[in-house]
Amino acid sequence: MSLLVVGSVAYDSVKTPVSSRDRALGGSAMYFSVAASCLTDVSLVGIVGEDFEEAHVEMLESRRIDVSGLERATGKTFHWSGVYSTEDVNQRETLDTQLNVFEEFRPALNTKHSESDFVFLANIDPALQMLVLEQMERRPRLVALDSMNFWIEGRRDDLDRIVREVDLFFLDEGEARSYAGEANIVRAARRIQDMGPRAVVVKRGEHGVLVFDEKDMFSAPAFPLDSVVDPTGAGDSFAGGFMGVLAATGDISHDGIRRAAIVGSVMGSFAVQDFSADRLTSLTTEDIQDRFDRFVRLTQFDGFENESGFLSPAKSSGNLLRHE
Amino acid sequence: MSLLVVGSVAYDSVKTPVSSRDRALGGSAMYFSVAASCLTDVSLVGIVGEDFEEAHVEMLESRRIDVSGLERATGKTFHWSGVYSTEDVNQRETLDTQLNVFEEFRPALNTKHSESDFVFLANIDPALQMLVLEQMERRPRLVALDSMNFWIEGRRDDLDRIVREVDLFFLDEGEARSYAGEANIVRAARRIQDMGPRAVVVKRGEHGVLVFDEKDMFSAPAFPLDSVVDPTGAGDSFAGGFMGVLAATGDISHDGIRRAAIVGSVMGSFAVQDFSADRLTSLTTEDIQDRFDRFVRLTQFDGFENESGFLSPAKSSGNLLRHE
Repeated sequence: MSLLVVGSVAYDSVKTPVSSRDRALGGSAMYFSVAASCLTDVSLVGIVGEDFEEAHVEMLESRRIDVSGLERATGKTFHWSGVYSTEDVNQRETLDTQLNVFEEFRPALNTKHSESDFVFLANIDPALQMLVLEQMERRPRLVALDSMNFWIEGRRDDLDRIVREVDLFFLDEGEARSYAGEANIVRAARRIQDMGPRAVVVKRGEHGVLVFDEKDMFSAPAFPLDSVVDPTGAGDSFAGGFMGVLAATGDISHDGIRRAAIVGSVMGSFAVQDFSADRLTSLTTEDIQDRFDRFVRLTQFDGFENESGFLSPAKSSGNLLRHE
Repeated sequence: MSLLVVGSVAYDSVKTPVSSRDRALGGSAMYFSVAASCLTDVSLVGIVGEDFEEAHVEMLESRRIDVSGLERATGKTFHWSGVYSTEDVNQRETLDTQLNVFEEFRPALNTKHSESDFVFLANIDPALQMLVLEQMERRPRLVALDSMNFWIEGRRDDLDRIVREVDLFFLDEGEARSYAGEANIVRAARRIQDMGPRAVVVKRGEHGVLVFDEKDMFSAPAFPLDSVVDPTGAGDSFAGGFMGVLAATGDISHDGIRRAAIVGSVMGSFAVQDFSADRLTSLTTEDIQDRFDRFVRLTQFDGFENESGFLSPAKSSGNLLRHE
């Protein structure tokens, strides 16, 4: 089924504890679409400036990403620069943000885009996210939303309006607490579900994600990596894998959502192993399958082997649960 | 198989965002032994003062906990008081610590204790932990260690000596980083394994645990609770469930360790739902089994259904992994 992402395409100058890179290809819609393109066809709607390199357009096209919605405007491409903490690679400081052409971004969908079955509204102004939904020919099968503290604090009304319209809401643990006004993450997620979304996906960085899908609750770990080169784009790559597998299979059942969270975690774990989307673009089927297998092994444990308790009789040494 | 814990028994005065309690029964060895007693017989070696209530001795005995090693000394029982943060229930501030009789604690094992198969050295002075091991009649089947930043920073040499002798090392994420001198948690755990322990269990509070067992890596989530009454004793209750199931089954294989981490997480999740060990002492077999089942459901996802990819042919919409 067709998949559409609307969001930013950027050049990022990043310094991490391991290394640094200047003007790396970045942006939420870029990470999302490259990750999703490992699983399905995806259309990207965004805006870049005159400085956007032809090689980067070609890279996207080579992955069968539909870039007919990638507008090229007069001016420069969105530029972000930041530095990651040496002690805690999840902490980063923004050194500079130049919106450039992104400031005038007004997403305009063509006919193909407006008929998409799956839509990911990456982290942009919630009023623009609503503008995208209003252009849809029909209600998509599934709409997912990302946002950030900047909009939670500054554009609460606009954000509330779009939250009411979406099926999935991806947000960080701190953002979930802040948006719900509730410190307990279970109650925070339930409160956000009450505002509209069927499912809330709470991203916890290196601690993985918690998925609250109607009454179903699922925990997916992040893959423990012995080297993280650049955390930029992890969340958008996660979302790309997540939505990519939903669009590829059409399975949006609870179990489909669970598998999507794992495939998302697979893609997020690859994304941070190099700058930009460099690791994602070099992935083979075997790489993805192998990492997925590792997630299985990372999380599996023996459950019940009989009806009488959680330890099998063969292994049991008597009356194990005595305090009834 | 026999299980021994050596550690503190205390009275805790605790204030949490939900409520507060004065002189609640606490201490690492208490939480550990009550949790473990849901699964197997356990012996407790510790020290209390003249103010220790007979009802608390009776509670332990009623759970078939062997308290022959619970020394009663002249003076007062160890008393700790602290307050948990309203914003983040994982953060706490110690208001007062009165070691009292615990200051003169010199663990002395009787013959039964010295022949234990499984030993948990709860968080005390590493020199005393070594004193316990030196009294063992024979090398136990499995020795597990807990410690804290206070000893990592102040008694590094003593700690290094005991770490060389143990099989499992339970420690917090921050403590693991600090002890290993390494910010990346995978490399930190591997470095600690190189110092002696077969397995390192990294506790991450509400984010669960990571188990590094030889080359095997396992992630167990914490159970997402919509109400946490008192986080005190979560780690020791986790260790009690963990060691309790190992001692009950005798299964210390990788898969046995994985299951132990889940049963530990079950017990830790119950411990925080009330003050002291009140929730643990009211548990039925059905409660434990039900929570274990919930951990299964919390973590399970569909893996491979065929050889060709991680999406089954029935659900697949074509050539999903195209970029080889």
